[in-house]
Amino acid sequence: MDAIRWLGESLALLDQTRLPTEEIWDDYTDYRRVAEAIRRLVVRGAPAIGIAAAYAVCLAAMEFRNRAPGAFRSGMDQALETLAASRPTAVNLFWALDRMKRILAAGVGPEVIPALLQEAEAIHREDIAMNRKIGRFGAELVPHGARILTHCNAGAIATGGFGTALGVVRAAHARGNVEMVYCDETRPLLQGARLTAWELVKDGIPATLITDNMAASLMAQGKIDMVFLGCDRMARNGDFANKIGTYGVAVLAAYHGIPFYTVLPSSTIDMSIPDGKHIVIEERDPAEVTHFAGVQTAPEGVGVCNPAFDVTPHRLLTGIVTEKGVIHPPFDERLAALFG
Amino acid sequence: MDAIRWLGESLALLDQTRLPTEEIWDDYTDYRRVAEAIRRLVVRGAPAIGIAAAYAVCLAAMEFRNRAPGAFRSGMDQALETLAASRPTAVNLFWALDRMKRILAAGVGPEVIPALLQEAEAIHREDIAMNRKIGRFGAELVPHGARILTHCNAGAIATGGFGTALGVVRAAHARGNVEMVYCDETRPLLQGARLTAWELVKDGIPATLITDNMAASLMAQGKIDMVFLGCDRMARNGDFANKIGTYGVAVLAAYHGIPFYTVLPSSTIDMSIPDGKHIVIEERDPAEVTHFAGVQTAPEGVGVCNPAFDVTPHRLLTGIVTEKGVIHPPFDERLAALFG
Repeated sequence: MDAIRWLGESLALLDQTRLPTEEIWDDYTDYRRVAEAIRRLVVRGAPAIGIAAAYAVCLAAMEFRNRAPGAFRSGMDQALETLAASRPTAVNLFWALDRMKRILAAGVGPEVIPALLQEAEAIHREDIAMNRKIGRFGAELVPHGARILTHCNAGAIATGGFGTALGVVRAAHARGNVEMVYCDETRPLLQGARLTAWELVKDGIPATLITDNMAASLMAQGKIDMVFLGCDRMARNGDFANKIGTYGVAVLAAYHGIPFYTVLPSSTIDMSIPDGKHIVIEERDPAEVTHFAGVQTAPEGVGVCNPAFDVTPHRLLTGIVTEKGVIHPPFDERLAALFG
Repeated sequence: MDAIRWLGESLALLDQTRLPTEEIWDDYTDYRRVAEAIRRLVVRGAPAIGIAAAYAVCLAAMEFRNRAPGAFRSGMDQALETLAASRPTAVNLFWALDRMKRILAAGVGPEVIPALLQEAEAIHREDIAMNRKIGRFGAELVPHGARILTHCNAGAIATGGFGTALGVVRAAHARGNVEMVYCDETRPLLQGARLTAWELVKDGIPATLITDNMAASLMAQGKIDMVFLGCDRMARNGDFANKIGTYGVAVLAAYHGIPFYTVLPSSTIDMSIPDGKHIVIEERDPAEVTHFAGVQTAPEGVGVCNPAFDVTPHRLLTGIVTEKGVIHPPFDERLAALFG
């Protein structure tokens, strides 16, 4: 299962805003449309955003291939800026653009295109390989009969393929150890209902959908054994930003003594920031909260909060599942040792 | 503001499923349609359900007024049974029907109708009076500049008028003490967005709508000073059932050291049950979670949980606001002293 495919001259993206009822792939040849697709959440999930942006850099270079060196360079600078401005929180976007920038530094014209393509495909391929490794490490944490809670979508379609948190679920399910995956629907955009439940049903993994506010009650009833979810940016002390609601799940898991893991490739770790206070949180359109499918569900004149993410302090984390293994506290020392 | 009006020969109910965009009152002369309106959440909220059911008993008696005594009695028994089966969790329904049964015991024909009407109107009037008293007691807890979180709708339209949790908010706002009311939207049926936000905007009280999964993050940021919410049934030890998600809010409030109050008239207390384990929790249609406004938002084949309520243990409660005052722990002793 995947949501990003490079077709040689264009980028195909599965339109995740249309799931679960319609599976529509669109072709992109204009990097500006890819930036717009990232903004509109056609493609979402920290690793997937990075991969799509890398391919979009290739589309820009192909568009500008016949320009003079100066114009090529200024076009590429503009493209990098537009892509970097598409969403502010996931660090993988900036990480992928930095890798592409390093390739670009080697040339001023179309001769860099093959190297750019190679790099974008490497970012994509490496992500899938990391997810497979992550899945193997994470699956070792999952006992037989496990009932797992997840929030939002850290699945195959949020990554290059296979998934981070859902990669762990897939690997554990392959070993016969998953009894049930409870999916928080994840308001306001219902990525849990629309995307995670869709991935799991498609793969034949037992899945139960709940509204976000039901998780606490299930925990109190002893129906949740562990939590695995994704990450959009992790600071070097282990504090991390993820989909709004993650922090609440972390507090509830701690209160009920339930192990709570975030699952991420190392490209999601931002060693340049000391803690979660330095993570920029994207505030999105109030209409995402006050309307649904074009139907108004709140009165005119009410105020609205709509942060896309929240920050969970590292002290609520049981462990961090990465492609290099599972990290336990003290996170600052161990993250520095592995990724510093 | 109200949602229930007795018109002499019929009952008018504000259709709460159409709010906030349409304010439509429907007339009811058939008790069966009132039972259906309770089931469909046209009228909802523990106190409001009790009041509507009491008036529905009057409608039944008026329908059967020309029957022979035996047929009148069997018709009324059938009506009481139908109304009692409309929803299982709120105890006010059974409490109100018990009051009506006591009146019915005094006669076998139409001669009891005036007494039935008097009793239904008394239940309604007493509820409003209790809400006013509750508001005064609760408002004493609210300091100047308070930022209050509420969940679901415990407002004027969930009661005979004025409201329980929102009665406290109204009384505190009248004293100039409310800086902001954060409304959990309250999935799946969005009573917070559709009803609470609507009541507050209409009354000019500052209101901010959030998805349920944002409350934890606001608490961590120090933006919530206290929580007031309603109650559908309280056991004699203080454990209580309320809208799904209440338990999670209670845990989060405790974790962040935020005072957490439930607000209720004494008709919501069920002294016949020792604790929350004895409260029946209504499980509703999965389509409430998988569809929104007719739009499918989850894949075919996914399992769904949809409990309408959860149970919060008394140890997470700071206090209980009632028409007789605010009760603090130990709740079992103090509830027995006031209501036993």
